[in-house]
Amino acid sequence: MVKENEVPTSLEWRVNMPDGSSRILTPESRQTSKFISRLQGLVMGIVLNIRGFLDKAWSLAINEPKKVVHCFKVGLALSLVSVFYYMRPLYDGVGGNAMWAVMTVVVVFEYTVGSTLSKCVNRAIGTCLAGSLGIGVHWVASHAGDKFEPVILQASVFLLAAAATFSRFIPTIKARFDYGAMIFILTFSLVSVSGYRVDKLVELAHERISTIAIGTSICVFITMILCPVWAGTELHHLISNNLEKLADSLEAENFRVVGSKNVHEKDSSKRLQGYKCVLYSKAAEETMANFARWEPAHGKFSFRHPWKQYLKIGASMRSCAYCIETLHGGINSNSETPEFLKKPFNDACMRLGTSSSKVLKELSSMIKTMKNSTKLDILVDEMNSSVEGLQKALKTFPIHQHIPTPDPATAEVPSGTEEPSVTPTILLLMEIVQMATLTSLFVEIASRIEGIVEEVKELATQAEFRDESSKKSKQTQTNPNEKDGNKHEVTMKTLQKV
Amino acid sequence: MVKENEVPTSLEWRVNMPDGSSRILTPESRQTSKFISRLQGLVMGIVLNIRGFLDKAWSLAINEPKKVVHCFKVGLALSLVSVFYYMRPLYDGVGGNAMWAVMTVVVVFEYTVGSTLSKCVNRAIGTCLAGSLGIGVHWVASHAGDKFEPVILQASVFLLAAAATFSRFIPTIKARFDYGAMIFILTFSLVSVSGYRVDKLVELAHERISTIAIGTSICVFITMILCPVWAGTELHHLISNNLEKLADSLEAENFRVVGSKNVHEKDSSKRLQGYKCVLYSKAAEETMANFARWEPAHGKFSFRHPWKQYLKIGASMRSCAYCIETLHGGINSNSETPEFLKKPFNDACMRLGTSSSKVLKELSSMIKTMKNSTKLDILVDEMNSSVEGLQKALKTFPIHQHIPTPDPATAEVPSGTEEPSVTPTILLLMEIVQMATLTSLFVEIASRIEGIVEEVKELATQAEFRDESSKKSKQTQTNPNEKDGNKHEVTMKTLQKV
Repeated sequence: MVKENEVPTSLEWRVNMPDGSSRILTPESRQTSKFISRLQGLVMGIVLNIRGFLDKAWSLAINEPKKVVHCFKVGLALSLVSVFYYMRPLYDGVGGNAMWAVMTVVVVFEYTVGSTLSKCVNRAIGTCLAGSLGIGVHWVASHAGDKFEPVILQASVFLLAAAATFSRFIPTIKARFDYGAMIFILTFSLVSVSGYRVDKLVELAHERISTIAIGTSICVFITMILCPVWAGTELHHLISNNLEKLADSLEAENFRVVGSKNVHEKDSSKRLQGYKCVLYSKAAEETMANFARWEPAHGKFSFRHPWKQYLKIGASMRSCAYCIETLHGGINSNSETPEFLKKPFNDACMRLGTSSSKVLKELSSMIKTMKNSTKLDILVDEMNSSVEGLQKALKTFPIHQHIPTPDPATAEVPSGTEEPSVTPTILLLMEIVQMATLTSLFVEIASRIEGIVEEVKELATQAEFRDESSKKSKQTQTNPNEKDGNKHEVTMKTLQKV
Repeated sequence: MVKENEVPTSLEWRVNMPDGSSRILTPESRQTSKFISRLQGLVMGIVLNIRGFLDKAWSLAINEPKKVVHCFKVGLALSLVSVFYYMRPLYDGVGGNAMWAVMTVVVVFEYTVGSTLSKCVNRAIGTCLAGSLGIGVHWVASHAGDKFEPVILQASVFLLAAAATFSRFIPTIKARFDYGAMIFILTFSLVSVSGYRVDKLVELAHERISTIAIGTSICVFITMILCPVWAGTELHHLISNNLEKLADSLEAENFRVVGSKNVHEKDSSKRLQGYKCVLYSKAAEETMANFARWEPAHGKFSFRHPWKQYLKIGASMRSCAYCIETLHGGINSNSETPEFLKKPFNDACMRLGTSSSKVLKELSSMIKTMKNSTKLDILVDEMNSSVEGLQKALKTFPIHQHIPTPDPATAEVPSGTEEPSVTPTILLLMEIVQMATLTSLFVEIASRIEGIVEEVKELATQAEFRDESSKKSKQTQTNPNEKDGNKHEVTMKTLQKV
């Protein structure tokens, strides 16, 4: 009953609000106009909502054209399957059960090839298993006499449905056969229940299986031929993009914390947030890896591509992202650190951050190209020597104020022998804490990056990444032990195969 | 073809392996026995697998009896719905379409009340919308002439299926109406396709809607009456348990890092891992919050309970867990810290860790009981004063070796005036880094815990937690500003309602 900005034409109750504004209490007689204006507001609200929704949908369509293509694929599959209804010869073949073909397409057609295949296989296995079991139970029940028939059927539905439902809670089943278990329950219930009426169960089963076969084959055909979206490829890109984002994030964080403002200022806030993608992508990775296992060989990936290894890389990336998050949240800058300490440690941290980020980028490009990198070991060595440099500096740097030397080369890695002599002032712990935290977080991040390196190397071994052809011999020199180990493993495998 | 541990009876090829063992290459003639033993191995493997699977299932059943109950609920619902097939009067009513009732029960019956209701509503809305649209399109098509009829039907199926599929990619739709969109596609395709043959569409629609109504009402009845599992309650317990686990984890981490070994030694490794539950529960929280919104008022929760606020608490808990993870991964103990620094800082860290963990436990019990805590503010003050104590110690503690004073009271919070005078030895940075990192991580954790406190307080306001009756007046005294703010808000709302 309170309205604003109206010209007063009659007796009014005006209420002064605490924020200085004033509002008018409208009497009962204005009800109608108020109702109209409210209705207008409602309609406007709905229009705005729909508009916002359409804007969102449009931007989604622009950003991910693959998804739009998927939608038309679904439409095409449904149109194809409905042909079975329109053409009389086919109609006579599969009859009223063509409905099952439509249903199969709607339910089974998913975004990625892997998930579609997984659902197809699940649906086929679930239907066949439950169908044969249902017919078996029905046969037993029909020989048990009229009295026991419904009891046996009811009891079997109750028990099998409960057991299949329970199996869906077991993680291994849930991950791979959740949909199959549901289809099992559905088909078994339908067969054992409808069997009570229809006495041509085998014919029914035959029809149903043929319609499901039609539906699944249309789905598989369309999903694999027309712009296929492979779960495995998506996972591969996700991991390599996430590595890149982590590298960017680390680099931006490095610049932010150490306080140097020379580059990457404008887009740094977006880059800073990159690690969040890594933090939140666990569920997506698991789903994709799960579906990727169903996919046949495609592109650069064989049927037995080590998809599980991607999950390990993801996990080690997340463990690194946790550290970056801590760094991001906790430390604004090491502004309290006294100047004479700041320069050498900022430089050392900067070097470590940059070399860590380079390692991550190299890993990303290694996964992207699926080639062993010759630079990787050099970059890791560089990172490790940065860590050592930092630790050495920590070990040898006395907490004692000394006049900063003008030559940066000696200031960066001060040796213990250069004892400062001029007016030693005692530092307070407070002044060093931020710098120390920064240092150890960077060191920790570097050690976690080594974990990622290990996992990516394991992937390279398992997926048999190609060597960069021209530099092959060079790499063999740098890593003689690892190569030997691999050779031995291969020999063992060859022997076992004999 | 390589076998181990067999007694040599004839000519053999023995291969010495690099690891010192030797293996025999078996000739072709042993094929049969080898085949049998392989078969045995296979069978044994399968038996062991099944056994392991059953063990896993059994432990799941023991640990989560609610899930077993759910399975029997599904069985019961299916048995009930199949009654419609067995009883002739009912059979005459809903006819061959009773299949839809069975299907509805199988597809719609979910573990929690919220997800079942969400699917029921989705199914009902999707079916009605698509059914009426399908009949409309069919009417238009039937008036367009024999030539255009299939074209119009096909085009409408293609376009609407594509549009509905696309809507499933939009996050807001996906979260709440994903299933409804699928049912929409299914029903529309079935209606517009089968309409070509069957001319009694309205009757069909009526039958289908009545069977779906039977199915959904059985599901809703059973899921809400027999041992209901509310998604909201599950979310509530998850959050309060996770807070408790975080507290345990922090406490155990505290003991591990600071190095005191007096208590909680035996179960500490399990307690240490508690924070991982928090790290990994994002997806579960979101799903539950999503379903909780569909649930009616139950137990202590009203229909408009602020479920979204739980997600915010979860997010701030995770941000705290990231810090604990960094602490857990990076720092083994502050063993390198010199003794004279260790004692006071270990004590201060210990105090901070303990008080932080107490705050978390209080928050957990506050959520569990849904009562405002009178102790909370005191505990938070305690935590803050621990932080301040630590920071004060850092500020005033000179990095300078001094003879440790035997009196712990003065050693704990050393004042700046107590300048040590006896043989000052210069410390190395290396010796302090670990301690400094430890300190700032604990301070960071404390500040993130304050974030959790804010979110929980917000929940308490939104969900109108009861005050602990006897101490109500006391609490009003401690928080006059907040109470005033609330009062003002209420006044505003009241005014707007006039």
